[in-house]
Amino acid sequence: MKFTAAELGKLLNGAVEGNPEAVVSAVSKIEDAQEGALTFVANPKYASFLYTTKASIVIVSKDLLLEKPVESTLIRVSDPYSAFSVLLEMYSSSKLNKTGREEPCFVSPSAEIGENCYIGAFSYIGQNVRLGNNVKVFPQVYIGDNCVVGDDSVLYAGVKIYSDCLIGKRVIIHSSTVIGSDGFGFAPQADGSYSKISQIGNVVIGDDVEIGSNNSIDRATMGSTVIKQGVKLDNLIQIAHNVEIGKNTVIASQTGISGSTKIGENSVIGGQVGVVGHISLAKGTQINAKSGVSKSITEEGKQWNGSPALGFRESLRIQAVYRRLPELENKITQLEKQLRQQTGGESDGEA
Amino acid sequence: MKFTAAELGKLLNGAVEGNPEAVVSAVSKIEDAQEGALTFVANPKYASFLYTTKASIVIVSKDLLLEKPVESTLIRVSDPYSAFSVLLEMYSSSKLNKTGREEPCFVSPSAEIGENCYIGAFSYIGQNVRLGNNVKVFPQVYIGDNCVVGDDSVLYAGVKIYSDCLIGKRVIIHSSTVIGSDGFGFAPQADGSYSKISQIGNVVIGDDVEIGSNNSIDRATMGSTVIKQGVKLDNLIQIAHNVEIGKNTVIASQTGISGSTKIGENSVIGGQVGVVGHISLAKGTQINAKSGVSKSITEEGKQWNGSPALGFRESLRIQAVYRRLPELENKITQLEKQLRQQTGGESDGEA
Amino acid sequence: MKFTAAELGKLLNGAVEGNPEAVVSAVSKIEDAQEGALTFVANPKYASFLYTTKASIVIVSKDLLLEKPVESTLIRVSDPYSAFSVLLEMYSSSKLNKTGREEPCFVSPSAEIGENCYIGAFSYIGQNVRLGNNVKVFPQVYIGDNCVVGDDSVLYAGVKIYSDCLIGKRVIIHSSTVIGSDGFGFAPQADGSYSKISQIGNVVIGDDVEIGSNNSIDRATMGSTVIKQGVKLDNLIQIAHNVEIGKNTVIASQTGISGSTKIGENSVIGGQVGVVGHISLAKGTQINAKSGVSKSITEEGKQWNGSPALGFRESLRIQAVYRRLPELENKITQLEKQLRQQTGGESDGEA
Repeated sequence: MKFTAAELGKLLNGAVEGNPEAVVSAVSKIEDAQEGALTFVANPKYASFLYTTKASIVIVSKDLLLEKPVESTLIRVSDPYSAFSVLLEMYSSSKLNKTGREEPCFVSPSAEIGENCYIGAFSYIGQNVRLGNNVKVFPQVYIGDNCVVGDDSVLYAGVKIYSDCLIGKRVIIHSSTVIGSDGFGFAPQADGSYSKISQIGNVVIGDDVEIGSNNSIDRATMGSTVIKQGVKLDNLIQIAHNVEIGKNTVIASQTGISGSTKIGENSVIGGQVGVVGHISLAKGTQINAKSGVSKSITEEGKQWNGSPALGFRESLRIQAVYRRLPELENKITQLEKQLRQQTGGESDGEA
Repeated sequence: MKFTAAELGKLLNGAVEGNPEAVVSAVSKIEDAQEGALTFVANPKYASFLYTTKASIVIVSKDLLLEKPVESTLIRVSDPYSAFSVLLEMYSSSKLNKTGREEPCFVSPSAEIGENCYIGAFSYIGQNVRLGNNVKVFPQVYIGDNCVVGDDSVLYAGVKIYSDCLIGKRVIIHSSTVIGSDGFGFAPQADGSYSKISQIGNVVIGDDVEIGSNNSIDRATMGSTVIKQGVKLDNLIQIAHNVEIGKNTVIASQTGISGSTKIGENSVIGGQVGVVGHISLAKGTQINAKSGVSKSITEEGKQWNGSPALGFRESLRIQAVYRRLPELENKITQLEKQLRQQTGGESDGEA
Repeated sequence: MKFTAAELGKLLNGAVEGNPEAVVSAVSKIEDAQEGALTFVANPKYASFLYTTKASIVIVSKDLLLEKPVESTLIRVSDPYSAFSVLLEMYSSSKLNKTGREEPCFVSPSAEIGENCYIGAFSYIGQNVRLGNNVKVFPQVYIGDNCVVGDDSVLYAGVKIYSDCLIGKRVIIHSSTVIGSDGFGFAPQADGSYSKISQIGNVVIGDDVEIGSNNSIDRATMGSTVIKQGVKLDNLIQIAHNVEIGKNTVIASQTGISGSTKIGENSVIGGQVGVVGHISLAKGTQINAKSGVSKSITEEGKQWNGSPALGFRESLRIQAVYRRLPELENKITQLEKQLRQQTGGESDGEA
């Protein structure tokens, strides 16, 4: 993306002050901005940066009074924050405006592709796959047989979706994430080896879900692993077979949810958390980073911490004492000594 | 996969009761089954679901007596569970019945490809690679120079295997897993920088191993990182250079095994466990989820928990006291107070 | 790689003793060496292995006196360790000597490719990408629009780099690592759903950085996520948006650094560590494996342990008491009992 001040002025219906040929190719916070960057000042608190910034173009309020000369080209608009947001949105969506097929790609003749889709080079669309309208499939994506991907979804480079999975509308999935790999199910045999249990279910992902990079979301043994509408998953997360993540739940990086567990809607789960299998967490549950949850949580909207997880306040109280453990041990030793001396003293007294 | 009741009846040598044209394209548990699903009732406990299920076809015992009319089409067989298992197996293997090469794929002229192999589009088979018979290489797989993959192995979409690695027979590796990346070895230099130590070993994977998605299994510095026969690895696992995982050991998701450590055979390691480098764990060791193992374990078949890991029972005993820490601190304060009062009281008495 | 003893002798300027036609295709430690392996003896401590090793060729000192006959072919040189190192280096770099384009690959007409580059099959080079000289792009790599990759860098199979990221010189990135995926930023809405915050920054990676496999390094919301010169990252690491990792810092596997945190240079962070967002760690900070860091660290060069992390010695002292908790509780119970008895006894005495 490259824009001149003149182009941006026209786009934002603003007045250019300075060099109309100034060019920007990046956006920055004003305190970090370098040459070639576009930035803005909405909050008067940041206005002082105007006189030192290296930004090539700054969007400012039409009412801003300058205290000294500035080097950057200014674009004066009535609401700088809104104007900047409009540009950000344009910038982001400009990265998703590709359409058509880049060759070579592999599209099964039985696949149905909606209108206005992009299929990047080296992507693979299996048999009977259905892509909605405006789906963006970046290069090197794999979509197995019989999958469905809803309108306006984006699959970034290298996403792998095994056969029979259903992806909703406006879903975003980041690179190297795997959807629908086999659940981890094995039956122990008499000789100490394990025999694989067929994993014949699928994964069903609701609308408006965003899934970060390098996630592993396993298919159900039978039935579906379900990620409900509006769920947001960070990177490197493990979702085991037959898990169900409730609507609008947010999970941070490197957390793992074990098999058949159900997470209630509007929950917030921190990073590096582990949740054991076959339990349920109530709606609105909040789990602190690094916690280990080993039992069902039935009370809604409560915060948990630690491994094994305890109520948040209780856990903090215990942690505080934990840090004083050496001191506590000293006190006990002291008490024992005192009591021994006392007993000894009394004996002496009695003698 | 789509089957009519008539086809399934013939396949299973069963009697169709109801609409022979009923069609199924999925399999489900009876309590979850929707229209278009095939399910079964083996356990009489579940027979009541027969009268409410939306499944299109249900496999039941030839001896089952109906208490009321059912909407699903029934297929009566002598052993419903076995019949269903046969279908599952058929269903699973039907996904692996592709053969031949999908174009474009890259197969080095020096590679030797066995009979009945599938090489998916955009897969890369390097120089001197040898694939056994019936190997299934899904799209976008990378197999570096000189690798060997044994008969009947399956590499799912996007698996990456660096050069010189050896993969056994009937091995399954899931998407985005990396085999043979460089071990993490650097020599600190006087100026604070690090110099790379060449990692010239490989990875050797035994027969009947299954490896989940997004695993990282590093090549040895010299010699081999070894995953022995029958090992099952879940997703997002780190296996560092020169590690050795014993036969039939099972490791759950997000666990990391540090460099040169040896895990004994038939061990069971939970999720999010960390094991330090250069130690050995005895045969049949069981490590609870989230534990940290920092010392060798010599006693076989013992269960460990916590970080640093302690014997399981000991660890539970300590955790129980840990939860009572604030109460314990109160008791100590109370004891101190009593003792102070007592001493004070005695003084008074003596006065 | 295959060499005969005659070829190696010539290469190393050494004298061949035994069969000049002996062939090696692998390198090993002498205690592990099998037929077809090349190894060496530099330390006299290992000389005894000479008489039992199955290695086909062993590099030894020209001065070594044999105590009994050996089966391996020997190559006598003045410094066996140096000679072996030379071979290792040759072996490693021989894997990186490919040049040119393997077809099919996708190279945008607007991309600039330096001299002596390798672009593997199924790789994708986006618009306006600039690759320096001698860059090795293995198969199935994705480099988004406007990225820059410096001279002598290596991107292994399946690396994914989103648009606008800058990669330095001599950088090595291993398979399935994702650079520049969207940061995890969402604004909570009144109805419980989340609205995506555009992530329009990039990732900037300095010279001499090595990044393992399956890492997720998110782009900044605005500005850059920065990995400075000489940083070494192991596998499966999460680096969130706007993080800054200082020069020559080393981070072990499965660690996560949350958004906007700054890690000082020359730090060493163990595996499975979690660091919260918006904090700073001083230069030379050392964090033990599995720790959780929730506050800024201002003192340089200090070692930390535990979750929440405490000073290393303090943490060990506390852990030692932690293990004695049941014993401590017994002592308290004992003290309470004694005090009760004493009070009781005194009462008796007073009666």
